[in-house]
Parts: sequence; structure tokens; C-alpha cells
Amino acid sequence: MLSTSLRLNRRNCLKAFGALLATSAGTGLAGSLSGCATPHLRGTGDLGLVIGRANGTLTLVDTSARRALGVIEGLGDLSHAAAVFSRDGLHAYVFGRDGGMTRVNLLTCRITHRVMQAGNSIGGAISDDGTLVAAQNYTPGGIKVFDAYTLELLADVPAFYGATDAEPKRSRVVGLVDLPGRRFAYSLFDADALWITDCSDSKNPTTQKFENIGHQPYDGLITPDGRHYIAGLFGEDGLAMLDLWNEPLAVRRILDGYGKGEEKLPVYKMPHLRGWAVAGRHAWLPAVGQHEVLIADTETWQLAGRIPVAGQPVFVMARPDSPQVWVSFAVPDYGHVQVIDTQRQRVIKTLEPGHAVLHMEFTPRGEAVWISCRDDNAVRVIDTRSFETLASIEVPSPSGIFFTARAMRIGF
Amino acid sequence: MLSTSLRLNRRNCLKAFGALLATSAGTGLAGSLSGCATPHLRGTGDLGLVIGRANGTLTLVDTSARRALGVIEGLGDLSHAAAVFSRDGLHAYVFGRDGGMTRVNLLTCRITHRVMQAGNSIGGAISDDGTLVAAQNYTPGGIKVFDAYTLELLADVPAFYGATDAEPKRSRVVGLVDLPGRRFAYSLFDADALWITDCSDSKNPTTQKFENIGHQPYDGLITPDGRHYIAGLFGEDGLAMLDLWNEPLAVRRILDGYGKGEEKLPVYKMPHLRGWAVAGRHAWLPAVGQHEVLIADTETWQLAGRIPVAGQPVFVMARPDSPQVWVSFAVPDYGHVQVIDTQRQRVIKTLEPGHAVLHMEFTPRGEAVWISCRDDNAVRVIDTRSFETLASIEVPSPSGIFFTARAMRIGF
Repeated sequence: MLSTSLRLNRRNCLKAFGALLATSAGTGLAGSLSGCATPHLRGTGDLGLVIGRANGTLTLVDTSARRALGVIEGLGDLSHAAAVFSRDGLHAYVFGRDGGMTRVNLLTCRITHRVMQAGNSIGGAISDDGTLVAAQNYTPGGIKVFDAYTLELLADVPAFYGATDAEPKRSRVVGLVDLPGRRFAYSLFDADALWITDCSDSKNPTTQKFENIGHQPYDGLITPDGRHYIAGLFGEDGLAMLDLWNEPLAVRRILDGYGKGEEKLPVYKMPHLRGWAVAGRHAWLPAVGQHEVLIADTETWQLAGRIPVAGQPVFVMARPDSPQVWVSFAVPDYGHVQVIDTQRQRVIKTLEPGHAVLHMEFTPRGEAVWISCRDDNAVRVIDTRSFETLASIEVPSPSGIFFTARAMRIGF
Repeated sequence: MLSTSLRLNRRNCLKAFGALLATSAGTGLAGSLSGCATPHLRGTGDLGLVIGRANGTLTLVDTSARRALGVIEGLGDLSHAAAVFSRDGLHAYVFGRDGGMTRVNLLTCRITHRVMQAGNSIGGAISDDGTLVAAQNYTPGGIKVFDAYTLELLADVPAFYGATDAEPKRSRVVGLVDLPGRRFAYSLFDADALWITDCSDSKNPTTQKFENIGHQPYDGLITPDGRHYIAGLFGEDGLAMLDLWNEPLAVRRILDGYGKGEEKLPVYKMPHLRGWAVAGRHAWLPAVGQHEVLIADTETWQLAGRIPVAGQPVFVMARPDSPQVWVSFAVPDYGHVQVIDTQRQRVIKTLEPGHAVLHMEFTPRGEAVWISCRDDNAVRVIDTRSFETLASIEVPSPSGIFFTARAMRIGF
């Protein structure tokens, strides 16, 4: 058992709560603060976290005031970190590359629990009812499922594969998402497999396994309605798709050969499929190693188009309130962000929000987008209609941006 | 000017905060409560309000613990009330039938502002950026737009129509929704019109007017992507639809003659279009005066099917995580709720959750649905997979149920 538990002291809390107090002006409440034990009341619906990848910090942000409220330290290696939120929006669960899983209280800026649950981890998910948190691990390969309140380990599902007579091998796990009914879906990079683990009985999970889904699934997504799980395949031109609404469940190949015959480019950064966009009946997704965004028809799952873009796409995200997808890029083109009009199916705007764009996050209703510009040590907030910069927030080496609205959505 | 402002004292707060404290067990926080000024910290993402229509109360509920946390009194006439939420989830804006608009702090259970803004009102909306709240009024007919923080009146848009030489007439306003970019769309019941008011400059709004959209628009909705505004027409068999993504904007008739040739039934209760469901490429909607749910193809906007149901449908709602729509009914059939499988296009379950079902609300990720059973003075919480009753919460004459997750969505 790798798990250990510790509690860290709060830091920067007074600074944070000065800001919390300031932002609650106008609520008509009278009250005084006495440190972290009685911080000011506020809603959690407009909060978010920005990962500071270089120094292992989280910056708490307010998407209404468009500013930072505080910094949380002691998160370990956050070089490829991700966060999910409790269904009340009070806590974040942060998954670090070093296998650390940390629960943070957003209103106190405090770490409440921290568990070293693996040697190498790349993310997690939270069950639809908010009671279970799962981590996807490279080393040792598999998923672990924890009680969301106590972080007690409830289930350990090693990703064994291959011959059973030899030393069992364990695959790296990628593309973990929540499915309705306390279930999780994920892909086994080394085993060309897709597994669904049902944690209805959390201490006795059952796993349904789909083999030979295609070579090297490298990430996965679930569509916003919980219907289609799609795994990108690094080892071939195509993707694997599972329609969860059609029994018996079967994985099929989609967009097979989308890059066939084209000259391969070196892949500078793996695309992130969590950012895939479904807009109307089309899904928009990054072509691995190509300077293209692909359009898939979600009824036939045939390729419906391809849009040339300024580099290798990493994130392809639908703006929630508009016929637009926004695209970020791999090095060396990651100083740009492009906006595609999904009706006209062409790029309508190229932005240069800063240096080394690593992530984007739309506000829940789409009026603004937050963009991490790592080499500027800044997060830029852009008005999605005017493309004006509304704010620039200082964050050291910012990468992932995660807003609490994710708690309300399937697959986030 | 009808507006008056008053502040009411808190009531039932100690009871509420006892419950708030109890539900925060396990957060690792130590702290003591001293009345409402320093209630316990908690997230607001899993809170909601249930309208008590008979006695003008709001019951604050917790969708994680599945119980009531407190009661807020002094809201006036809530016989046909609705609520929207601030983008942080801290405040609710409640629109009463008597024209009262009340802002409530969910964490203190206190009314922070209350304005009598009209003589007869049936609901409101909040702008995408959370800064503007609009009320739709029957008497005097029109909309009013307020600062979301102070409830200061910013704009008054009377719904004038007809001949300009006579005493101007004012139409009742229905179907108010938020549109992206600080805009609001709504319908004029008496004027057969659809208006869009742009409040980018909130004190100088501009209004675009569409006339002759069809007889007696009685409610409206905006699809979840902000693209299609649809108004139901009480005066004819058909609906009016505006595609906001295709310039120049024009209203067209859809599903024309959906009930043609059928015997008319008396209409016992107007359907509520806010509950309309979009599932995949189909929109599911109540047929006025028929025992049917209609299916519209959202690409062609032709009628794609009709499903016989147990009575006149009132709410037709998509379960967020599943190919299901749930249907509630008008008197005398309002003891039933039916579940339609949208893949098989037929009723798969008929529930009897209680007496006089008035409203339903799904949790954001769909694992449960809350159902108001007015004549049982109870809200029943149903597991959407097993159909089991998970909890029954005492609320006097419950009607509308509103969860804070609405703050994250367009058109809620």
C-alpha cells in the first residue's frame, strides 16, 4: 500500500481571506474575520483553480471579479496535474504527476487530506453522486477508488493484461471519465483495451473489459450526455468509440484512416481529448500530428470535414454559447489561439494571448475564456465576443485551469 | 415607479444553521456558530430552493444530504413563482406573482433585498455575466432590468403594441430567457410578437422586434447552446422559432398543424416550455391540450413523432445522463409521472410519486430527480436508475424546485 496521509498547515490564508472579504462587498452582511476558522461567506459557483506547474501551487481564482484570491502550496509535482470538484463546489481533488492526490477546501485555502496513492498518475474523476473519487495511474498501472469524504481507499483495480502464466504486466491507464451510476470508463495504453468499472458496490467493483480496441489509446472523453466514450489512438489513424446507449456494448472504429497517405509530422505534444468539442451534431477534435482539426458527424461517426489550423492542435473546445470552437496548439505554435466558426467551418480569428499557451477554460455560460500563458506567468481573461483582454492575472507557470462548474457536468 | 425597497428580518435562521453545521461534518474544520453573522462555511453547488406556494415560503434544500436546511419567509404571493441564481450560487432572485422580486442569501437564509416591481409578474432571467436581472411582467406589461447586486432599476421596457394614436396598449410578457451578450428574449402574449432586448449598455437598451410570429405565444425556451428560441403558441397548432445563429434573424413557424384534425380537449393547465427537452437531435415537447408528447427534429424542425402519454403533459424534461425524458401532467392526471425512452420512443415506466405533482428538477448529473407533490406537502427524491424513493422532504404545498446549478446554464 502506497497510501500515506498527512495534513499540511495553511499558508497564505490571511492574504486569501482579505481578498475573499473584499469580494463579498455588497452582500449586506456584517462580520469580522479571525483567520481561517471564520472566513467570509461566499458562494462557490464562480471559483476555480489554476495549476502552477513549476512550483506545485494552486491559485484560487474568482471568475466574477476576475482575479486571484489566494495561493495554496504543498501540492507536490504538478507538472501534469488535473482537478475535479465535489458536487457542492467546496472541495477540489487534485491529481499530481507524482501520484499525490490532494483534497483542498476552496474557502479556507487549506489542504484537508493528501494521499500518495501511486508512483505516477495523470488525473482522476468523481462519481455522479459525488461520493467516489478515482485516480488513473501509470505506475503501478490501474485505477484506485477512494471515499470522497475521507480519502479512504475503497477499491484497487490493477490494469493487468497479457499472459497469465508469466509475471503479470500492468498497463498505464489513460482517459478516465465518470459514467452515470457510480461507474468509470478508462483506457489501457499498453493493452489496447477499454475498461468500465462499476462501483455501485464500491468495495466490490466489477469490471467489463473490451480488448483490441486499437493500438495505444492515449486519452478518452465522454460526450456531455454520457452516451459516447471515445478513445484517441496514438498507434493508428482512427479512434475507438463505445455507444453506451446500445446494448450489447461493443467498441467500434471511427474516422478510420483520417490521416492516411499524409506525411507524418513529429508529434510535439499529445492532444488532450477532454477538450474535445461537441457542437450541434458535430464533434470537433484534434488530428494527432497534423495541422488540422477534424469534424466527425455524431450520427454516422464518419469524417465530415477537416479544417486547416496554425499548428498541431492540443485543445479543441466548444464555446458554450456560440457556434465557435477555440483551438490551442503544441510547440512551436503555442503562442496562438484560433477561433473556428462551426457554421462556416473556417478560422475566423487568430489571437496571440501570450507566450506558451497551455490551457483554456470557458466560463460556464461562455462570456469569457481564461487562457494560461506559461512563459508570461499570467492567465489572460478574454471577452469571447470582442476578443478583448479583460484581465491578466499573475500566476507562476500556469497550466491547467479548472472551474467549479465542472462539478455539474458529466465527464469533467 | 412601483418600486419600493425593504429589508426583512431573518427568521428560522438558527434552525437553518444547525442543519448547515450538521451537514459540514467531515470537512476537518473547527468553528463555532454565533447566529447568522458567522454561519458555517459550505459550498453552494448542491443547494436549491423549493417554492411553498400556499404560504409564501422558500425551503432551502441540500441535494447531497437530500434534506431541508431551513425556511425563508416573507416572500409574498408565490402562487406562480420562479427563481434564478447569481453566478456564484450565493443568491437567489425570486419572482412572485404579486410583482415582488426578492433577493435571498442562501447561506444566511436571509432576504437581502425585496422590490415590488410590478403588479403581476411571472418570472425572470439573469444575464450571462451575472450582472443584470430581468423580470417579465403581465401588469404593467413589459420587462424591467435591474442591477443584480443592488436591485437598482436600470431599464424599463414597456411592451407597447397596436395603434400609436390611441391609448397605447401593453402586452403581457412571457417566455423571458437570457441570451448570450447581456441580451434577453421574450414573447408578447397579446401582441403576437417576439422581442430581443440588448442590455450591453444597460441603461440604454435597444430592442429588436419580430411581429406576427403567431397567435398568443404563451411561453418560450432557448436551447441549451443558445441557438434556438422557441415560443409555444396557444392560439394555433404550431410554434414560432428563431435561429439566433443565422443572420438576418427571422422567425419561422415550426410543427405547423401538429394537432390538426384532432378533437380539441379543454386545456387544464398551460404547459411550461422551460421544461422542454433536447435529447440528441430531437426536441421533446408537450402538445397543448393533447395527451401527447411531440418529437421535433432539430435539424429540419419537422414533426418526427408523437408519443401517447397518460394525460396533458406540463413538464417534459430530459434526464441529463440518459436517453430518457420524464413527463408530468395537468389535472386530473397529475398523480403520475411517466418516463419515455428516447431511443425506443415509448413510455417505459409510470410512477405515482404522490398527489398533485407540480414540478420536477433533476440533479445536475441526473442521478436523482426531485418531485413536488403538493397535496402530500412533500418533495420526493427519486433514484433515476432504480426508481426508488430515496427521501421525502416535508414542504408545505411545494411547487417549483430550483437548484443552483441553473446558474451555470443558458436559459435557466
